[in-house]
Amino acid sequence: MIKKVLVANRGEIAVRIIRACRDMDIESVAVYSEADKEALHVQLADEAYCIGPKTSKDSYLNFTNIISVAKLTGCDAIHPGYGFLAENSDFAELCRECHITFIGPSPEAISKMGTKDVARETMREAGVPVVPGSKGIVKDAEEAVALAESMGYPVIIKATAGGGGKGIRVAKTEEELVKGVNITQQEAMTAFGNPGVYIEKFIEDFRHVEIQVMADNFGNVIHLGERDCTIQRRLQKLLEESPSPALNEEVRERMGDAAVKAAEAVDYTGAGTVEFIYDYNQQSFYFMEMNTRIQVEHPVTEQVTGVDLIKEQIRVASGEKLSLTQEDVTFNGWAIECRINAENPEKNFMPSAGRIEMYLPPGGVGVRVDSAAYPGYMIPPYYDSMIAKVISFGATREEAISRMKRALNEFVVEGVHTTIGFHLKLLEHETFVGGDFNTKFLEKYEIMKS
Amino acid sequence: MIKKVLVANRGEIAVRIIRACRDMDIESVAVYSEADKEALHVQLADEAYCIGPKTSKDSYLNFTNIISVAKLTGCDAIHPGYGFLAENSDFAELCRECHITFIGPSPEAISKMGTKDVARETMREAGVPVVPGSKGIVKDAEEAVALAESMGYPVIIKATAGGGGKGIRVAKTEEELVKGVNITQQEAMTAFGNPGVYIEKFIEDFRHVEIQVMADNFGNVIHLGERDCTIQRRLQKLLEESPSPALNEEVRERMGDAAVKAAEAVDYTGAGTVEFIYDYNQQSFYFMEMNTRIQVEHPVTEQVTGVDLIKEQIRVASGEKLSLTQEDVTFNGWAIECRINAENPEKNFMPSAGRIEMYLPPGGVGVRVDSAAYPGYMIPPYYDSMIAKVISFGATREEAISRMKRALNEFVVEGVHTTIGFHLKLLEHETFVGGDFNTKFLEKYEIMKS
Repeated sequence: MIKKVLVANRGEIAVRIIRACRDMDIESVAVYSEADKEALHVQLADEAYCIGPKTSKDSYLNFTNIISVAKLTGCDAIHPGYGFLAENSDFAELCRECHITFIGPSPEAISKMGTKDVARETMREAGVPVVPGSKGIVKDAEEAVALAESMGYPVIIKATAGGGGKGIRVAKTEEELVKGVNITQQEAMTAFGNPGVYIEKFIEDFRHVEIQVMADNFGNVIHLGERDCTIQRRLQKLLEESPSPALNEEVRERMGDAAVKAAEAVDYTGAGTVEFIYDYNQQSFYFMEMNTRIQVEHPVTEQVTGVDLIKEQIRVASGEKLSLTQEDVTFNGWAIECRINAENPEKNFMPSAGRIEMYLPPGGVGVRVDSAAYPGYMIPPYYDSMIAKVISFGATREEAISRMKRALNEFVVEGVHTTIGFHLKLLEHETFVGGDFNTKFLEKYEIMKS
Repeated sequence: MIKKVLVANRGEIAVRIIRACRDMDIESVAVYSEADKEALHVQLADEAYCIGPKTSKDSYLNFTNIISVAKLTGCDAIHPGYGFLAENSDFAELCRECHITFIGPSPEAISKMGTKDVARETMREAGVPVVPGSKGIVKDAEEAVALAESMGYPVIIKATAGGGGKGIRVAKTEEELVKGVNITQQEAMTAFGNPGVYIEKFIEDFRHVEIQVMADNFGNVIHLGERDCTIQRRLQKLLEESPSPALNEEVRERMGDAAVKAAEAVDYTGAGTVEFIYDYNQQSFYFMEMNTRIQVEHPVTEQVTGVDLIKEQIRVASGEKLSLTQEDVTFNGWAIECRINAENPEKNFMPSAGRIEMYLPPGGVGVRVDSAAYPGYMIPPYYDSMIAKVISFGATREEAISRMKRALNEFVVEGVHTTIGFHLKLLEHETFVGGDFNTKFLEKYEIMKS
């Protein structure tokens, strides 16, 4: 079993990992940038070392310093959390060379899933549904047009090296497609050094539904149900829930099977998430991408399954078998997560760094808070703006929603702007309560302006 | 359905009830003594009214003021929490006369269970096991001696009007019994105005195991499993867990059935707890008493059953049927509660009132905190010394224990002494971890002195 873990991250996820280590009697080592000296993860870990200045590139992304701390402190494993180095196959490879366990999948699996057109082809070959589209890169606009005619418009043009909403363009007509392919190729060359683009049928109205998978080194792969992450603003998830209010048992089962197939196709190990576009009109779904790491929204799955995903990651990385089989996985109740950020929703969600003067997280039945904030904590402006993840759970969606509203109403954060008010409006919105919405929901209703 | 609830209590239980009201979209009215102006329950309720000076007698026990506030604010129900008026049948009777729903059982049920020898006889008649002993009051020492000879020594002498550890005396010989009966009768006359005493066989080594029951006005009675409250100091519970590490399935079922019988015997309605002496050597148990109210330790039951007991109390008091049948009750995992008090365990648990300068409750997976504390809160010296109930839960007892240790290690309370360190020592103690102990555990090991 792993004995000492370096936590190569900051914020709530670093705290989450340190907590799992404590729960398992494993020592933890925090690393931090100069801006994070006073951070909670630094206070909670058994040891803590500064690894560089405030810029992520020189600290949380600094391979050499992180590996050096791990070596010097006798860590036998590194947990990358999410973001930063979590999906960096070079870093995972370096860990392997240094004989440090990277708590995550193999560099090969990360790499295969990280390259969009490779992932797409791998999935197609494995029998996982993908959105109809080109087989890999399109040569030119002419090939794209021929394909689009066979599929029907609109289509979406995607740079294979793109990501995070960049290098993407929708075309509704042949004219737009010809232009779009040429422009996206040029832009992708400039931005990513790789001009390759592919096209897919554009599904306008869909939900974002993803499946949590977990795999060990003995070929066992299970899934832990779905998370619905349809509530997004500019591709950023703001609220996630499990189960999805839009899935029936039949679709749920098919999607779970597809996710397991996806993981098997790349010899996946550890925790991963297979994201799907769910076309609820057709009750069909398509592979979107696989996140080869733990995700921000993992707590909703923990609440409905009772499985501690971080502990399971550590166990699997230690060479143990999964602690449960697919048959052992049971689902109880409903869980919702709201990401509370230090942002001003009335000013276009502008980040609001500064000192949290007063802080009191909500509590009581059906409420979990994952946070690295505390009274007096100064939120540095250099990283993400998350203050806390508030997770509510109950026997039903209705109960989870009412407990979330109560929790957010109780939550005291003074000194910075927060998105608490935004989430409260969202939770009151009849369309959200009804459960029937798609990824355009926030755009359509402009909740903050109502 | 009840629309507006007056919460006739303070501290964490007042907060707990207000939270349940919010979760149900029911308005809540707080009442407070002059010492509690700044209390959290006052801040969280929809309305709040001062009902008198700091002394409980003039505020939280002030029938007239509480009923007046309820009437003036249009409350249709009063929730008494625990302590104060919770088991006062006169108050429940007054509520009835004023056409205000008392969220609890009938005055008759409270009264029957509140008089020890009546409760004992009622239970015996209903077929609930009671400790062998006298049928009601013993006339004199002579009758007591005859009985003791038939049962065998040691025996325990109890004043029927006693309670909370007062009016109780153990006798190991005939001589001690004769003296004991006479002294206890005299003391009981002085202290309670009622000289009646009864005797029971004294069971030396036992566990305190209790069953949560819930009943509606339609004759439906269910139980929600047991809580083990064996960890006590001078009859004060310090740590509770569910399930009990000492019960097997067969005993669990028998005890659950006995508790349902006990409730049925007094036409019980609402939430109640039947406490048993569990003689683990004989795998037999005896009725100790019934608490006709919600209990401090109710959250451990909520965690393993998923049932919100306060919501269920309100539903039943509204005239609804129980939301679940005995068959619907399922048990998942393990939950532990630690009562964290503002006391100095190194100075004989002396209360430590004062200002909480810094406060940060623990969080993350498997941790719930029920508290009325906040940074800057001044703990008044007039009431109980509880700061927070920390509840941990996990798939197994081991997981619940490790999460509790992590939570307590994280818990920041500065400015007053607390029992956090005491609980941490307890959780590390091999006898506690082993699960094999009785109510003398703390006395025997003197944890704080080791």
